Amino acid sequence: MIAILTKNAPDEAVEHLSDWIRGKGLDVHISRGANEIIVGLVGDTTKIDPILLESMDIVERVQRVSEPFKKANRKFHPDDSIIDCGHGVLLGGGFFQVIAGPCSVEGDNLIRIARRVKAAGATMLRGGAYKPRTSPYASQGMGEAGLDLLLEAGSELDMPVVTEVMDPRDVALFLDKGVDVMQIGARNAQNFPLLREVGKTSTPVLLKRGMAGTIDELLMAAEYIMSEGNPNVMVCERGIRTFETRTRNTFDLNAIPAIHHLSHLPIVADPSHATGHTRYVGPMARAAVAAGADGLEIEVHDDPAHAWSDGAQALTPDMFDQLMKDLLRIRSIVAPAKTEA
Amino acid sequence: MIAILTKNAPDEAVEHLSDWIRGKGLDVHISRGANEIIVGLVGDTTKIDPILLESMDIVERVQRVSEPFKKANRKFHPDDSIIDCGHGVLLGGGFFQVIAGPCSVEGDNLIRIARRVKAAGATMLRGGAYKPRTSPYASQGMGEAGLDLLLEAGSELDMPVVTEVMDPRDVALFLDKGVDVMQIGARNAQNFPLLREVGKTSTPVLLKRGMAGTIDELLMAAEYIMSEGNPNVMVCERGIRTFETRTRNTFDLNAIPAIHHLSHLPIVADPSHATGHTRYVGPMARAAVAAGADGLEIEVHDDPAHAWSDGAQALTPDMFDQLMKDLLRIRSIVAPAKTEA
Amino acid sequence: MIAILTKNAPDEAVEHLSDWIRGKGLDVHISRGANEIIVGLVGDTTKIDPILLESMDIVERVQRVSEPFKKANRKFHPDDSIIDCGHGVLLGGGFFQVIAGPCSVEGDNLIRIARRVKAAGATMLRGGAYKPRTSPYASQGMGEAGLDLLLEAGSELDMPVVTEVMDPRDVALFLDKGVDVMQIGARNAQNFPLLREVGKTSTPVLLKRGMAGTIDELLMAAEYIMSEGNPNVMVCERGIRTFETRTRNTFDLNAIPAIHHLSHLPIVADPSHATGHTRYVGPMARAAVAAGADGLEIEVHDDPAHAWSDGAQALTPDMFDQLMKDLLRIRSIVAPAKTEA
Amino acid sequence: MIAILTKNAPDEAVEHLSDWIRGKGLDVHISRGANEIIVGLVGDTTKIDPILLESMDIVERVQRVSEPFKKANRKFHPDDSIIDCGHGVLLGGGFFQVIAGPCSVEGDNLIRIARRVKAAGATMLRGGAYKPRTSPYASQGMGEAGLDLLLEAGSELDMPVVTEVMDPRDVALFLDKGVDVMQIGARNAQNFPLLREVGKTSTPVLLKRGMAGTIDELLMAAEYIMSEGNPNVMVCERGIRTFETRTRNTFDLNAIPAIHHLSHLPIVADPSHATGHTRYVGPMARAAVAAGADGLEIEVHDDPAHAWSDGAQALTPDMFDQLMKDLLRIRSIVAPAKTEA
Repeated sequence: MIAILTKNAPDEAVEHLSDWIRGKGLDVHISRGANEIIVGLVGDTTKIDPILLESMDIVERVQRVSEPFKKANRKFHPDDSIIDCGHGVLLGGGFFQVIAGPCSVEGDNLIRIARRVKAAGATMLRGGAYKPRTSPYASQGMGEAGLDLLLEAGSELDMPVVTEVMDPRDVALFLDKGVDVMQIGARNAQNFPLLREVGKTSTPVLLKRGMAGTIDELLMAAEYIMSEGNPNVMVCERGIRTFETRTRNTFDLNAIPAIHHLSHLPIVADPSHATGHTRYVGPMARAAVAAGADGLEIEVHDDPAHAWSDGAQALTPDMFDQLMKDLLRIRSIVAPAKTEA
Repeated sequence: MIAILTKNAPDEAVEHLSDWIRGKGLDVHISRGANEIIVGLVGDTTKIDPILLESMDIVERVQRVSEPFKKANRKFHPDDSIIDCGHGVLLGGGFFQVIAGPCSVEGDNLIRIARRVKAAGATMLRGGAYKPRTSPYASQGMGEAGLDLLLEAGSELDMPVVTEVMDPRDVALFLDKGVDVMQIGARNAQNFPLLREVGKTSTPVLLKRGMAGTIDELLMAAEYIMSEGNPNVMVCERGIRTFETRTRNTFDLNAIPAIHHLSHLPIVADPSHATGHTRYVGPMARAAVAAGADGLEIEVHDDPAHAWSDGAQALTPDMFDQLMKDLLRIRSIVAPAKTEA
Repeated sequence: MIAILTKNAPDEAVEHLSDWIRGKGLDVHISRGANEIIVGLVGDTTKIDPILLESMDIVERVQRVSEPFKKANRKFHPDDSIIDCGHGVLLGGGFFQVIAGPCSVEGDNLIRIARRVKAAGATMLRGGAYKPRTSPYASQGMGEAGLDLLLEAGSELDMPVVTEVMDPRDVALFLDKGVDVMQIGARNAQNFPLLREVGKTSTPVLLKRGMAGTIDELLMAAEYIMSEGNPNVMVCERGIRTFETRTRNTFDLNAIPAIHHLSHLPIVADPSHATGHTRYVGPMARAAVAAGADGLEIEVHDDPAHAWSDGAQALTPDMFDQLMKDLLRIRSIVAPAKTEA
Repeated sequence: MIAILTKNAPDEAVEHLSDWIRGKGLDVHISRGANEIIVGLVGDTTKIDPILLESMDIVERVQRVSEPFKKANRKFHPDDSIIDCGHGVLLGGGFFQVIAGPCSVEGDNLIRIARRVKAAGATMLRGGAYKPRTSPYASQGMGEAGLDLLLEAGSELDMPVVTEVMDPRDVALFLDKGVDVMQIGARNAQNFPLLREVGKTSTPVLLKRGMAGTIDELLMAAEYIMSEGNPNVMVCERGIRTFETRTRNTFDLNAIPAIHHLSHLPIVADPSHATGHTRYVGPMARAAVAAGADGLEIEVHDDPAHAWSDGAQALTPDMFDQLMKDLLRIRSIVAPAKTEA
């Protein structure tokens, strides 16, 4: 971390600041330029609040030099993390998986869809029982009954299930039911009580990037979970909000190699939410695999026009079947196949 | 709501779609153009999911024509809402209030700061006891002890207190303690379980706009609270995230007249978070009043350099004192003074 | 195009508006809803200014229903355009090409780099002679001497050359010299005099998306060129500006399938500018091919650390050589090879 | 400027880098931290290309510490610049002016509008003769005849005129005609040949911020003009592009105090383009004055519904008349009146 001071900062004030920094256990390096004084803070700066530093009179600006995350940082953990999602399915570190299923659990059609996605090559099953909906008047999901249906399907097909938890009060129920992977949605990307609550478990977490979340903030949210003791975090790029309106979100695939560079955590990509249109899901799923994603999450529905939510972005089982073939071929080009640790 | 169909949509499919819409209790108007067919949905479209409509084969695109919010909509409630914040303080509909205090409740300095802001003309007291912090390693606030200190100060000075609630499990405690106004922070702008929970009370809510939240989403979040029975919502513009990095956020003051046009709810502006720098708080506080804000929320600290959080954007009591004079003079130009209902 | 009127618009005013629209040669369809009146404008709306319509008292909002571009629109030109770039190189409609070379033409190293990229499989040569630089104090390129060096290399290697034109006064020189493809940079994406000037030629144009340019605006810029008589336009996704700062831009690969859906023009992707870091160019080049790009533009330099500009994002010839193998394998999965029209 | 090196950069490479920097005439300060090495570059870094530095193997990231602009920088020019716009009208450094008139010069109505805005208190007259239009099919302005009408009106009313120049080839004509202030529009904010061309004159320039332009880029564009010898630059905030669609742009009023802090150049605000709706122009004009703008540019038309362009955001002369009263009262609160240098 460096602090840029105004060039006419009095020596006394600079000395006072230096003492304050040393009092926090850090070293101080000072460079005097023609137009400003630069103070380098050397040591563990994760405990220094840059905002606080910036509030001092003589400080013009503060810039971070190293990342604010530690447990999620590849610098301190060079090897890729591999997450055990249950039912023998590993994700990350060379293990590539496709999570598929309907946006919402709606009833008996779940098992039909699940069989199709498994047959096509998906290894994990998704489905929402608790749905974050922009409108209070829209369907909020089946709740507990939805969890039961999902877990039944997972059990019958021997697939780990992935489903969203929105409320810290529901985490215990998810654990009781035996949910394999808890998903944190984009709207809860900085819901700190919820992050802490899933951090207290050892269940794998699929953590989605917020709509205005930077890569650093996504990794800091992972750090929240990990700081509570749960190392089993997979992050997920699902599109960010920009000025472009032709697609629902802007799919930031740059985040895939960038996160691989910065962190050891696996990264999953969600082309369904990132595009919002069935017709773009295929090309962008292929692109995400080519960019190096460790997994994909794709919405599949056997009757999209009557789906409870997000029908516009679901593939039919036939479309998914075709797509899987391409995905596996592209994956074999960008990464050597790995089927066991 | 209108649906734009592909021009070669078969008559049968258009008829099928029309029946489906009529089945939802709406009327259908069809215009056939040279390059597309436009289907107008007339009636209460708040229950129609545009995404679902868009998932149909023949539908190219769906556009909303009317706002998706009802209770927050000025069309159905033409008069400004006036919120009774307790201690005789009204906000909205001509009543202008300034909320001031430290970012975090830190201890004994609270009452000192509170006395100064009251003397300067602030009518409501702010202070965070539970703090949403980007880093898990940063101070998370004093918690319950902080609430007690804040309420003591409010009681001594006969001022309503405003403080953030982050966790639905804490709402009962906030009610027990007698918090006057519950603040929902930007990171929880779409934390639906939390919005529902505060919606079940009758305590006024100060609802902040999310960092990537549109004006419509802010009003939909208000609708969540109102749909549970609590009409006492004040929305707050606190800056949005854009590409500009010279200031912490981009203060979207356009939102003030836009929300006044769309909704009857009062709108408060927070120049402290919207700029992130003490030196910009004064000019932007003046601007927010000139733009027609019904209230301001401003951070004040008597020793910003040692504040627990956000010191960089706090004013000193002396600065606040000066600023209040300008704010009231500008307010008197843009709106006639109103001191009772 | 539809105009949403306020619900209490007087009949007379609605009639007046309808007459005005009919006077422009369009038909009018009116739907009266409970809360608003919707006026559909049916016919060729490209000549109607939505802003003008919106300025009328009774008009609440105007929404486009069909795209404002015609010549670039796939609706009126269903088959993919194939651009003849010279030297027998076709791009689009199944023909995939890689454009490679240094960011700037610097001198004798150009021919060395050109030989390497050709050997690796690139079919077109890039190099800037006139450089748009954010700082007036940075090198502005070799100018005419750079064009000569570039064209010499193109001639020796029988490759079409691509180079940026920034000033309408330079177009004649580019034509005289025989530049094969004129590139319009992101900063000139709405430089209308320049677009018109290249539109008056028949030389192929590689048109980059502006940093804040929507997909529609990119296609409208293409329309500008085409409206002057030049149909040889290739558009280029090179990253847009968002709040994310870990990469230089956000690579909007969604634009690739979206533009293929909306337009018949070929789309090229530029992973070098879209990421700004050598280490991300490879993964994102692979992703762009997988997303369906018709071509790629990649910066290659044999001594990136001493390049005149943008060294940080250049690949070495060896890296490029490796990458080309992957790109062609991925291309063969997403599209059948096509070597002649 | 600082360069952050990877922690395991070999001493030899660090020494090599240091020599290279010293060779550019700068000093080098090195701080070795636990996880990285920080190299401070001390001296005139405006000539160092951070991108080039970043391309070196051992360099992880480069951060600017001081601003890349010099002539526009307040550090080297502490006093406010005052621009003499002709006809005795000064802007900046305490002199506040309102520029008003129609978006486009359309004909005889210009002089009628001009008389009204002058009577209301406007001191400068605006009107576009050359119009940048998103669609090639929209009206492109009256051209030279429009300039003549505008200058006639300016002459009759003894007001300086402000009008946009889009093409470097037109600058000579603007000078010949005697245009008082040349406006550079948002789409040309990085049209470097045009910036250089107006920089070669001594005519005042009103330089608009680009739609995706940062504050630093706006000041760098001013630097382009100034580096050619023209110090008479006024910058203009006219809204930036964000995800919000309820208003045409997001009016970044934070830029006003931020630019006053960073630069000595005057800043004008344009609430007409920044909002795009007549109904929001008044509140946001008031806000811009309260934020400290040195001037405003406001569109006024006596028949907005029939204006050639941007009618939706024009005020009528009566509305403008009312507004001017508020603006002057707010101005008197935020800055002492100044009527002579």
